[in-house]
Amino acid sequence: MSFTIREGEARDVKAILNLIQELADFEKLPNEVELTTEDLMRDGFSNQPKFKTFIAEESDGNIVGMALFYERYSTWKGKIIHLEDLMVTQSKRGIGAGKALYTAVLKYAHEQGCKRVSWEVLDWNKSAIKFYESTGANILDGWQVVQMNERKLQEFVKNN
Amino acid sequence: MSFTIREGEARDVKAILNLIQELADFEKLPNEVELTTEDLMRDGFSNQPKFKTFIAEESDGNIVGMALFYERYSTWKGKIIHLEDLMVTQSKRGIGAGKALYTAVLKYAHEQGCKRVSWEVLDWNKSAIKFYESTGANILDGWQVVQMNERKLQEFVKNN
Repeated sequence: MSFTIREGEARDVKAILNLIQELADFEKLPNEVELTTEDLMRDGFSNQPKFKTFIAEESDGNIVGMALFYERYSTWKGKIIHLEDLMVTQSKRGIGAGKALYTAVLKYAHEQGCKRVSWEVLDWNKSAIKFYESTGANILDGWQVVQMNERKLQEFVKNN
Repeated sequence: MSFTIREGEARDVKAILNLIQELADFEKLPNEVELTTEDLMRDGFSNQPKFKTFIAEESDGNIVGMALFYERYSTWKGKIIHLEDLMVTQSKRGIGAGKALYTAVLKYAHEQGCKRVSWEVLDWNKSAIKFYESTGANILDGWQVVQMNERKLQEFVKNN
């Protein structure tokens, strides 16, 4: 079955959240998703959206994949695009939807004059790493991701 | 000499860029900074700024440090703050400016109702890592940063 890539719309929030959850399951962190469809609606499909999405949709309207991305700012390069999630549902792997979504994001970044596209990958996800490298992306050595979660943030602010 | 923390303003762009360059030098990547004061002015101090800054300023007006940050979006948690750069000039280390800037960013994130604050650190920067961990931040295992630079992005778009 063929598919097309289009921008995500408000009516897609349920499908987008399902794909977010499926990606969290794949990443072995199934309980981390706190986001709701209401959050996605407010944050992505109102004035001043905080992210954009591309959707892979089969000809019967079935949504099989999505890419979610937003702008960041590099103090070295300027405006960049960050690809937060790229996900194709398990049963639809291999039809080219992932590559098509990835390509759509990179073309969008290029059209916007961005100086870089960034994302993060789990080090055990060797097939993804191999794919990214084959397209010209660079897996950085030496940089580590740091996070302070909401509970620790509250504690820190209370004590400082 | 005492210092105060305040929001960055347009008149600070030269000092901000000097600190960005000093940080790139410290990170052993001195030639990576392509940003200009004009870029910083347009991107940070016009309508719809792409980032915010806090400035550490001594009582004589000398700017000794800065934090640059912006909003990102987690598909698990929602709105988060990303701390892109935190820098105190070499000769002014140890007076508490770094901790004060860091605290200002975390308080801002908390006030904004953010679910997480994120940043990146070089794995050899053990003193920074130790400090971050002492405040409740978590150095993630297993996640790698991926980037596609402008030249590779152009090549990819041309060929796809």
